[in-house]
Amino acid sequence: MFTMTVVPRFGDMDMLGHINNTVPAVWFELARNPFITMFDPELRLKKETFPLIMAHTEYDFVAQLYFQHDVEIRTWVSRIGTKSFTVYHEAWQQGRLCVKGSAVMVHYDFNTEQSTPVPDGQRLLLKEHLLQAE
Amino acid sequence: MFTMTVVPRFGDMDMLGHINNTVPAVWFELARNPFITMFDPELRLKKETFPLIMAHTEYDFVAQLYFQHDVEIRTWVSRIGTKSFTVYHEAWQQGRLCVKGSAVMVHYDFNTEQSTPVPDGQRLLLKEHLLQAE
Amino acid sequence: MFTMTVVPRFGDMDMLGHINNTVPAVWFELARNPFITMFDPELRLKKETFPLIMAHTEYDFVAQLYFQHDVEIRTWVSRIGTKSFTVYHEAWQQGRLCVKGSAVMVHYDFNTEQSTPVPDGQRLLLKEHLLQAE
Amino acid sequence: MFTMTVVPRFGDMDMLGHINNTVPAVWFELARNPFITMFDPELRLKKETFPLIMAHTEYDFVAQLYFQHDVEIRTWVSRIGTKSFTVYHEAWQQGRLCVKGSAVMVHYDFNTEQSTPVPDGQRLLLKEHLLQAE
Repeated sequence: MFTMTVVPRFGDMDMLGHINNTVPAVWFELARNPFITMFDPELRLKKETFPLIMAHTEYDFVAQLYFQHDVEIRTWVSRIGTKSFTVYHEAWQQGRLCVKGSAVMVHYDFNTEQSTPVPDGQRLLLKEHLLQAE
Repeated sequence: MFTMTVVPRFGDMDMLGHINNTVPAVWFELARNPFITMFDPELRLKKETFPLIMAHTEYDFVAQLYFQHDVEIRTWVSRIGTKSFTVYHEAWQQGRLCVKGSAVMVHYDFNTEQSTPVPDGQRLLLKEHLLQAE
Repeated sequence: MFTMTVVPRFGDMDMLGHINNTVPAVWFELARNPFITMFDPELRLKKETFPLIMAHTEYDFVAQLYFQHDVEIRTWVSRIGTKSFTVYHEAWQQGRLCVKGSAVMVHYDFNTEQSTPVPDGQRLLLKEHLLQAE
Repeated sequence: MFTMTVVPRFGDMDMLGHINNTVPAVWFELARNPFITMFDPELRLKKETFPLIMAHTEYDFVAQLYFQHDVEIRTWVSRIGTKSFTVYHEAWQQGRLCVKGSAVMVHYDFNTEQSTPVPDGQRLLLKEHLLQAE
């Protein structure tokens, strides 16, 4: 599991006084930073060599999030496929699960625009964060 | 069907030279503006009377979106339930479907923090935009 | 003058029921799209050849912006220097000026990380949109 | 001085491989959270009682910010006026000042839509963070 704490911003609230539903999607992207490092260890961040593309996101909003308290983002790997893997996220505030959901990331070659197998090295690293293993 | 055209912003690109995956979620929220008007016709936009809350979003990224061309967002109602309804979105660029997905909106009373039935008037309005009807 | 119309998004409001102050900065970036085309006409959008970097922004918030109405962004060139130029923006809603301000863009070589003179061709194009000329 | 550390997000980069210029404005808003608490100590966050509105922002982009490293935001009060005060921000990455700038916040009554004097209590709290005092 990866954890990070995010601090809500005044403008993250909407006029309902809660955090707008587009905000957790951005927090979850931030929480996937460890996968950037895992798949691009030198952080070259060049299209020619960067190997991940987003295929699917789905999020359940199970309780309202508010500005007043920090939010803890917990992140696991929930599936390791041949050419893709799924990341599972939870956003907690004051001991309450508020948002949960998944993002499917495909191992991808931006030069050929084709998906490619997840390399063995990264497969091992992903396994260390498997939801089932914990 | 509702349609709107959005123009990508320079900062919507990430370092891969395509539109970052968090951006269409924001465009789809914009494309749901007609539902704001449908359920809050005078646009009072007060927590005491505003009746919608987001319960679920899921988006499939089927082709890359780029900065160079406008994007057309097409929006339908795909399901009308007792206390919620589902909005279905597609993002098209240069004749190609790039992102598709759904958002489940719950009819909600922010005072009691309970879901409530979709009123008949709004139910009729939603039906006019049913995906199956077109 | 360049003009574009932007539609406020529900999440652009903050809990004060007005558009959050970070939002017009994003709209103004969108309104600078014509300068992207002016300086990178083929929209190659590559770091090796893209010639603009942001040096300074300043915005005055003179009236509140609301969700209920479209916003018109008006954009001029207010200064053409040797190696930089200034863009002047106004955001209008319902006939009222709500935000005005400037962005200083430097002609820049990302390979050498040095500012470079604005080419004569672009200088002519910028002149066509000079605030004083209108 | 207030300090906070922010972690760049993949989508905060633009296609130039650096952090897009609209991003530090959002970080600076986050860094102003202590002023929210200072002026709305119970965090009621209601339009009827919240007393601050943004009047002006200006930011100088003096060096490029990158994804690879955390960013430290340092925040001071640089001016205390009768009905407004100015916040001064700096964004540092790897020991280098990258962005600096100011935000002018007006003490404001959203009911009457008039500026009002900064109360003595808050004036004292602001003084503790005066740039000149350090």
